[in-house]
Amino acid sequence: MTGGADIERVRTIADLRRCIAEWRAAGLSIGLVPTMGALHEGHLALVEAAVGGCDRTIVTLFVNPAQFGPNEDFAVYPRDEDRDAGLVTRAGADLLFAPNVDEVYPPDHATQVHVSGLGDILEGEHRPGFFTGVATVVSKLLLQSLPDRAYFGEKDYQQLCVIRRLTRDLDIPVSIAGVKTVREEDGLALSSRNAYLTTAERAVAPVLHGTIAQVAEQVGRGEDPRDQAQWAIDQLRRAGFGDVDYVTVRNAETLQEAVDASLPARVLAAAWLGKARLIDNVAV
Amino acid sequence: MTGGADIERVRTIADLRRCIAEWRAAGLSIGLVPTMGALHEGHLALVEAAVGGCDRTIVTLFVNPAQFGPNEDFAVYPRDEDRDAGLVTRAGADLLFAPNVDEVYPPDHATQVHVSGLGDILEGEHRPGFFTGVATVVSKLLLQSLPDRAYFGEKDYQQLCVIRRLTRDLDIPVSIAGVKTVREEDGLALSSRNAYLTTAERAVAPVLHGTIAQVAEQVGRGEDPRDQAQWAIDQLRRAGFGDVDYVTVRNAETLQEAVDASLPARVLAAAWLGKARLIDNVAV
Repeated sequence: MTGGADIERVRTIADLRRCIAEWRAAGLSIGLVPTMGALHEGHLALVEAAVGGCDRTIVTLFVNPAQFGPNEDFAVYPRDEDRDAGLVTRAGADLLFAPNVDEVYPPDHATQVHVSGLGDILEGEHRPGFFTGVATVVSKLLLQSLPDRAYFGEKDYQQLCVIRRLTRDLDIPVSIAGVKTVREEDGLALSSRNAYLTTAERAVAPVLHGTIAQVAEQVGRGEDPRDQAQWAIDQLRRAGFGDVDYVTVRNAETLQEAVDASLPARVLAAAWLGKARLIDNVAV
Repeated sequence: MTGGADIERVRTIADLRRCIAEWRAAGLSIGLVPTMGALHEGHLALVEAAVGGCDRTIVTLFVNPAQFGPNEDFAVYPRDEDRDAGLVTRAGADLLFAPNVDEVYPPDHATQVHVSGLGDILEGEHRPGFFTGVATVVSKLLLQSLPDRAYFGEKDYQQLCVIRRLTRDLDIPVSIAGVKTVREEDGLALSSRNAYLTTAERAVAPVLHGTIAQVAEQVGRGEDPRDQAQWAIDQLRRAGFGDVDYVTVRNAETLQEAVDASLPARVLAAAWLGKARLIDNVAV
């Protein structure tokens, strides 16, 4: 579709449910793509997966205050709803759900969803409260629309694990689909926060992916995961990264230290480059 | 119905959902009555409300380990599934969902639902972790069956408030119905834990309801809630109760101290009598 009118934008849960009820009455399957806006090709890959897998696709656009720490970038997080609406329209979505904060969190909202263990390590350790914010809002988004399937990027791999776990644990009747990370030609994973990089930092940024890809390859060949992680940290520092929050090889499902080499593993990393905190991951 | 075969008992979420899907396909509405078994007339009033309000009624029977403290009565909590199955059959229920602990909590279950504030005061203060256990299992039970309506007793008034709040906060598309407390002729609220009372304690137990009913009447007439609560504590101690955990007059929805006399209020109390901890509440 080119040049057509943008898809319908819905602001309230009641309106969202009215629309979904009509689709359900017509026997249509529904895919959900939760986003915080500032859409890039990575998000559009999620939309395309949903469009390909379901009769109707809902994209949600909500910058969730509960998952930002007090010193994080909630206030300056990039927002451009009109641009995002155009992008998802062209990608084939059917509805944009863009609620205000009060619609999602009434003033006396008091309930949190917490995933112990999986939500407390790695990103959870470096960003206290982050996964409780994510788990709570994702639970809500899933229950507001009760789609057949919801799509999340592997770029935020730990988030995907947390969401799979809470969906199973709370018996939410929705299937969770992970979608492969979309990368620039030089390997940098697409991220809304890449906009924070200067030109010089942007030139360095692909070293993150290059380095963890090498770790994955070496560990796959039987090299020691801890030695490889330490090598990667040194590499990143030499390339110009600031603090390296972690580079680690983990069990791909539990995200515990990967001790059993026969089980699927994942290399995960988070490191600062200027004002941007970059995260990435690859399969071993 | 007398003497007929008992209703179907289902052990797995998959079987439960199969049965519900058939009912849904036939356009039937569904009521859910979550219980921990050890059923009495109070539970049967919930079942009757569900049978009267919905086409099909599911009773769940699950003694939830997550809501018992380490020194509480999980191990000795009364269990008699056959008796309970007979009772709910005669009350008109259509299905008994009685899962094992592993079906509800797989070994790597890691997700908790917590209601801040409302779940931390009163019972939450005296039974740490209790409402997180309740909120988590009720979220799961609601999402396993997604009934039109779920029924809970006003006997556990704070629990009812917590459940209403989490259902709204997480956008669970289920309506929560509160059902009036069923009492013995002498006023004692029915409770599975009344079985712990000796004959002598049983004779004293109705003083709890009598006392808080007087508090409600006096506060309704304009008397000071704190003075009345103190009077009630003294009354209970004189009657032979042990520790009085609280007697308090609260806003009927938020359970905060009732400061605005124009808003609905509730008198809530918890007190020990021998080995039994009795709770009760009445409207002002």
